[in-house]
Formats: sequence, C-alpha cells, structure tokens
Amino acid sequence: MKVAILGGDGFCGWPAALHLSDQGHDVVIVDNLSRRAIDAELGAQSLTPIRSIDERIAAWKEVSGRQLGFENIDIARDYEVLLDFLIREAPDAVIHFAEQRAAPYSMKSSWHKRYTVDNNTNATNNLLAAIVESGRDIHLVHLGTMGVYGYGTAGMKIPEGYLDVEVTADEDEHGNPTEPHRISQEILYPSNPGSIYHMTKVLDQHLFAFYAKNDSLRITDLHQGIIWGTHTDQTIRDERLINRFDYDGDYGTVLNRFLMQAAVGHPLTVHGTGGQTRAFIHLRDMVRCIQIALENPPSSGDRVKIFNQMTETHRVRDLARLIAEISGATVEMVPNPRKESAENELHVVNETFLKLGLKPTTLSEGLLQEVEETARRYADRADLSKIPARSLWTEQQHAGEPATPADEPAVVG
Amino acid sequence: MKVAILGGDGFCGWPAALHLSDQGHDVVIVDNLSRRAIDAELGAQSLTPIRSIDERIAAWKEVSGRQLGFENIDIARDYEVLLDFLIREAPDAVIHFAEQRAAPYSMKSSWHKRYTVDNNTNATNNLLAAIVESGRDIHLVHLGTMGVYGYGTAGMKIPEGYLDVEVTADEDEHGNPTEPHRISQEILYPSNPGSIYHMTKVLDQHLFAFYAKNDSLRITDLHQGIIWGTHTDQTIRDERLINRFDYDGDYGTVLNRFLMQAAVGHPLTVHGTGGQTRAFIHLRDMVRCIQIALENPPSSGDRVKIFNQMTETHRVRDLARLIAEISGATVEMVPNPRKESAENELHVVNETFLKLGLKPTTLSEGLLQEVEETARRYADRADLSKIPARSLWTEQQHAGEPATPADEPAVVG
Ligand SMILES: NC(=O)c1ccc[n+]([C@@H]2O[C@H](COP(=O)([O-])OP(=O)(O)OC[C@H]3O[C@@H](n4cnc5c(N)ncnc54)[C@H](O)[C@@H]3O)[C@@H](O)[C@H]2O)c1
Ligand SMILES: NC(=O)c1ccc[n+]([C@@H]2O[C@H](COP(=O)([O-])OP(=O)(O)OC[C@H]3O[C@@H](n4cnc5c(N)ncnc54)[C@H](O)[C@@H]3O)[C@@H](O)[C@H]2O)c1
Repeated sequence: MKVAILGGDGFCGWPAALHLSDQGHDVVIVDNLSRRAIDAELGAQSLTPIRSIDERIAAWKEVSGRQLGFENIDIARDYEVLLDFLIREAPDAVIHFAEQRAAPYSMKSSWHKRYTVDNNTNATNNLLAAIVESGRDIHLVHLGTMGVYGYGTAGMKIPEGYLDVEVTADEDEHGNPTEPHRISQEILYPSNPGSIYHMTKVLDQHLFAFYAKNDSLRITDLHQGIIWGTHTDQTIRDERLINRFDYDGDYGTVLNRFLMQAAVGHPLTVHGTGGQTRAFIHLRDMVRCIQIALENPPSSGDRVKIFNQMTETHRVRDLARLIAEISGATVEMVPNPRKESAENELHVVNETFLKLGLKPTTLSEGLLQEVEETARRYADRADLSKIPARSLWTEQQHAGEPATPADEPAVVG
Repeated sequence: MKVAILGGDGFCGWPAALHLSDQGHDVVIVDNLSRRAIDAELGAQSLTPIRSIDERIAAWKEVSGRQLGFENIDIARDYEVLLDFLIREAPDAVIHFAEQRAAPYSMKSSWHKRYTVDNNTNATNNLLAAIVESGRDIHLVHLGTMGVYGYGTAGMKIPEGYLDVEVTADEDEHGNPTEPHRISQEILYPSNPGSIYHMTKVLDQHLFAFYAKNDSLRITDLHQGIIWGTHTDQTIRDERLINRFDYDGDYGTVLNRFLMQAAVGHPLTVHGTGGQTRAFIHLRDMVRCIQIALENPPSSGDRVKIFNQMTETHRVRDLARLIAEISGATVEMVPNPRKESAENELHVVNETFLKLGLKPTTLSEGLLQEVEETARRYADRADLSKIPARSLWTEQQHAGEPATPADEPAVVG
C-alpha cells in the first residue's frame, strides 16, 4: 500500500513511518519541520539525539534496504503543493499527524493560541479539500485525542466517539403534537476540551463529520491517549533512527517529566492534588494501532470511524508513586498551571483495537526499561531549567491568583 | 453604550449600526469591505444602489446628526490592529457579523471552501483572543445560524442552543459498577451543518464554549434564521442609507430570488420538491433582537447564551406560492444544487426574544411591500443571468449526477 505520513518527522509520525515501511508499505513522509523550529523557539531540544530528516532516511535505507520518500510541505499554507503531491503520489491512505500538539504551548500567549488554531484547522481543512479536489479515493487516518471528551466521566465509560442519548419528543414525524415520548439517537460525544490545542481537535471532528457526509470521504479518527515510551522495534535498530523524547514544560507529557526528574534525582513534581486521571498507550502499541486502522478502513458513505486508542488509565499521583518506587525519587506537590478539575474518574471503552488483535504493553512492565534506556542514558543532555511547566491557562493566573477549577464535563459529571 | 460592529458595512451590520446609533449608542463600524470585493469577483452587485461606506456615514451624519466611526480592519488577518482597536476604543460590546456568510459561495470550489474556513475561524478566534488579551470585560454578540442545528426535526422543537438528554450510566461517582441507571444532562445541541459555511458556525460555537469556560468571557450567540426585507426605520430615511439586496445565485437567499423573479416576470424557481422548511425573520426584527441581546448580557462565568433569532418557518414551495399569488408569477421546479433532505419539518423554540418584547413582522404583512418597494422599484438594475444558483455541493454533481440526498440530522430525524 502507498501511505503518506503527514507529520512524519514527529514523535509519533517517525516511528509510524518506520513501522509501516518495515511492513513493506511504500511510505512517503510530508513535514514542514515546524516542530524542530519550535524547539529552537523554546530553547529546548529532544533529550535523545535525533538526527536530521535526511540522515534518518539515509540510516533507514542502510539498515533496512527500504527507501522512505520525503517532501517539505506546510500543509496549512501550501495547498497547491499538497494537492499536487496527492495527485502525483496517489497514496491509498494518508495518516495525518501534522498539527501543533502541545496543550501548554497552545496556551502560552495570544500568538500561540492563534498559531495553533490557524495551523491545525487549516492543515485539516486543506487536506480534506485536497482529497476531494484530487478525486481520489484516499483513506484518511487522523490522530485525535482523548482530550476532546473532557477528562472527567462519573457514571459511565467513554464510548468510541458516539454516544446513545434519549430526548423527549412531543410531535409525530409530520410535526403534529403528540403525548411526550422518548426517542433515542446516537450522537457525536459532546466535547469538553481543556485547552486551545484540545479544542482544535474538536474543530477537526466537525470538519471530518462534514466531509464524510457531504463528500463521502473515508475517514478514521483515532482518539489517542498520552503516548509513553521512546523506542520501537525499528527505531532501536540504529542510534541514528532514535525517536524524539520531549521533557520540557511545553511538550514533555507528565510521564516524561517524571522520568527525567527521576533520572536526574529531582523530586517528581505533581500538579495540584495529582487526582487527574489520564489515558495512556505505549509508542509500540500506537504504531500497531495505526497499522490496524489502515487495515480496517470505513466504506465510502460511512460516518467517521472513531477508535479510542489507549490501553490504560492512571491517576497522576499514582504514576508518580510508581516511578518513585522504581527509581527511588521523592514526590513533591506544586500548584497546577492548568484550569481543570482537581480529581476526575476516567473509564474508557477501547474494545475495537483489542478485538482487532492489539496486545498492550503495560506501564508496569515497560517503565523501568524507559527510565534506564532513555532517561538515565541521556540525562547529561538535559537542561533542567526547561522541565517546569510555565504556560498558564488564564489571565487570573497571570495576575498571581489560582485558576478557578474547571466545571465538570458536558455530558457526565 | 459604546458598541463596535464588526462587519458593519454588510447586509445585517449596516442596519444594525444605524438602529443602535439611533438609540443613542456610540457606534463604530469595523469592516474590511471584503463583501464588496466578492461582488466584483462574482460580477454581481446589490439590486439596491448601495453607497460607499464613507458616503453612507456622511449621509447618516446629515440625517441624524450622529457620527458613526469606521475602521478598515481585516479581523481574520490583522490581529494586532484589532487588539489595538479594542484597547483604544474600549467598547462595552462587540457585535460580530464579520464572516463569509453564503452557503453556495462556500461550496463553489476548493478555494472558496478554504477561504470560508480560514476567514471565519480566524476572524472569530482572533476576536476572542484579542478580548482576552485586552483584559477588558466586553460582551461579545455573534451572529450564528439556525443551520447549525441541521434542518430537519421530526419529533421535537429545536431548543435554544442546548438540549436535555438522558444517557445510561453504570458506575457511581467513584467509578464503581452499579446497576444501569439513567442520568440526564444539558448539552450543546448536536450539530448537522449543510454546507462549509454552516460548518464554520459550528466551529465558532466550540470556540465560544471554550473561551466562555476558560476565560469567563461573556458571549451571546444568536442562531439566526434567513433574513428577509431590505429596509428599516433608519435605512429608509435617505436613499444614500439604502441597504444591500443580494439576488445572485450565491448570496441571494431563496426569498430574494423569488422576489426578483416575480419583479421581472420570470417563473419562481423552486429547487427540488420545495419541501425544505426554513426559518425566517424580518430585517427590522433582527435589529431589535440585537438591541435586546445587548440589553440582556450573560454574566461572567456563565455558559454561552444562545437565542433562536427567527419568527416563522415556511416550506420553500409555500413561499413560492405566496409570492406567486401576490405577484402573479408562475412557479417552476428545477433540480436541487444542494445535498440536503428533500423534505423536512422545522419547529423552533423562540421564546426568549418574544418574552423580552419582540413583536414580529410577518411575511404575510410585509411581502407585498417588499415586492413593490424593492424588487420592482430597482428591477431595471438586475442582471438576470446572475439569478440561477450555480454552486454544486459534490463532485458527483460536477460529474452530472444528482447528489444522493443527505441523511437526516443528528439528534432528531
Ligand atoms: N504525543 C502524544 O502523546 C499524543 C497524544 C494524543 C494525540 N497525539 C496526536 O498525534 C499527532 C502527532 O503528535 P506528536 O507527538 O508526534 O507531535 P510532534 O509535534 O512530535 O509531530 C507533529 C509533526 O507535524 C509537523 N507539522 C505540524 N504542523 C505542520 C504543517 N502545517 N505542515 C506540515 N507538517 C506539520 C511537525 O513538524 C512535526 O514533525 C498530533 O496530531 C497529536 O495531536 C499525540
Ligand atoms: N443574511 C442572512 O440571512 C443571515 C442569516 C443568518 C445568519 N447571518 C449571519 O449574520 C452575519 C452577517 O450577515 P450578512 O448577511 O450581513 O452578510 P454580509 O456579507 O452582507 O456582511 C458581512 C460583512 O462582514 C465583512 N467581513 C467579512 N469578513 C471580514 C473580515 N475578515 N474582517 C472584517 N470584515 C469582514 C464583509 O465585508 C461584510 O461587510 C453573518 O455572520 C451571517 O452568517 C445572516
């Protein structure tokens, strides 16, 4: 299969490209290298020594004998080039990772809010419009986030994208009044995003729903949990293939922050009470999920296929305890820079991938290896001043007050 | 009150500016005049002889003694200028009309889809980010559309923005399994937009929900029906104040098309079966609604206040019949360029405005006047070749096949 990987130089896109290439697919990467430019803007860099995209591709050729294509296209800006690419390369599927993906970065300033909305919305809409204009039957697989659901669910498991609801009706199908009666329907799960970044993924959902309905595009949207782990069976084959590991306050996810802090003997900093529950999935399982999604496309005319791409949930303070146990680090509670509920439950349906054969790597098996093979190994490259999260969610906080805690999510809470 | 009217040179914005100025408010218009540029692009023009914004403002000064401010700002592009404007002018309220508002125009080509998404999403997000950055407590009133609901409702009236639903829960608040039980919640009404234009209004809704929640912005979103009528008590005072009347295939709404066709003795062209039901409101009532919305702002911390701004619903074929009766025109059925349900019911809750004192002008009273005072009066300015709708919704139609009818709307259908 010919597969285009948009955002294929990034943390998820690069290992996905190698995995699919290893499976024998003909893979071409599209990326504008904006993530590397953001490293420069933030004065941060990957803990792991990632190579240039050219060096990466050359190393993969050497190691595997397989050739990856690469095109530097800003998909949010260079529509004509993107369209031309789709027509010329004629991919069977496009995997769309090419968005600004950090919540704290999206909240840093007005500029960062606007960049994130502009980049992500135009990237997705350009891609959709280009697929329609190309006239080709391309399966679009997009990386969404569990964060569109809003984090808390008390009372029910989060379903895979769609929710059964009942409403009270009091008319018949011709609009004549009747006794009140219940009618039920399946709707897109009501969204409750916690940052501008997460909100752009909500906007994406509505773009997808429209193009699936109007243009019969075949679209799969993967509502992904937080990725952990750095290596896959492919990236581990040569140090020049190494994947990025972000540990800075903007791009480093909570788990990476803890791993880094453990590796350098710093207390693990838990935001607020640490009662936030989050969904996780290992990088290795992510690449398998992408493969499974590719192998199970929707049909033309179907609604958007939504999978929850996560394998386990943990409270942040429990994660900290787990890593403290493994590494001997201590735990420290610090004020929460985000506006969010202090404590939340999170139960998620993830049957589709499990039924289709995914065998999850669990945190309890993989964490120790991660501390040793990544965090300790490259600890001397770390700039410790970059670890704290400095983005604040509200003007209130900029004025030195704590954020009022966020309300509970839309449907269930 | 100091009021900024974004899009104040447009069909709704101009009469709203005059009405609020007449009420004694200090009004300043912001507009990039893109709508006039689109007239040039389409080779179309307003049936009524609208004057330049400078001439309009000078005429209003002469007629009323009141000064309107004007600034040419592209709010989707010139963020810093917009921010500076908000800080300098310090409006109490901003009325946001400044978007590309025609469904057929938004579907004309890939470029038009992308322009509409880019312009409307960045316009709204820039405005929201600028209000936050300005640090000022500004009430934002936005013009949304009934079209976010999707057009069909069999079984229930469309509520004002939020819908009561019940879902089945099987956990207690700590996530422990329980017997299945029902829990109810109010959610944003599930959207089902029928064009790229309508979809941008769905995206707007999610932007508003986020900023209301995260930044406690005070936001009112008016889900407006199709406006009819051309004159208000203010625009009628001098021909130089005359409002625009669009009758071309892209911007002319169904009613204006019929009025024009009646005025020039052309058969009234009904798309499909004419079974589509639409919501309407007279221009005069629209300006009153804006005033009422201004006088009844939400409080900081409230969710987005949503009003349905419409006063009556009609099936398209019934409208055609009504105008045929008044004018003696004949009715002709033509293929539908849109992808939509052939027939739909539409029942809408519009209590808020009625309770707050709106006295609707009904179609049956006002239509005849409209035929005479606008359509017949200026009929010699019409370019009849511009009347047919030429935008097609799908590639299927471009290839000469009819669009498969759209599915029924999300919640109720
Ligand atoms: N990393 C996670 O834990 C996680 C969790 C859930 C969802 N996701 C989603 O997965 C996707 C990939 O995430 P990631 O962690 O690999 O992020 P990343 O920032 O490492 O990778 C994104 C890549 O896209 C590129 N890109 C961004 N905008 C572009 C544009 N306009 N044109 C071309 N290329 C562009 C960047 O240069 C970068 O290489 C994102 O959409 C993200 O929202 C990631
Ligand atoms: N006319 C209707 O029947 C109707 C029905 C429902 C909702 N609405 C909504 O009401 C609003 C006004 O509609 P209208 O009929 O007056 O449309 P219009 O096109 O006549 O007016 C919109 C005005 O906004 C300006 N504008 C557009 N983009 C801008 C930008 N980026 N920066 C600055 N100015 C910009 C245009 O130049 C124009 O003067 C729209 O948001 C529309 O969606 C209209």
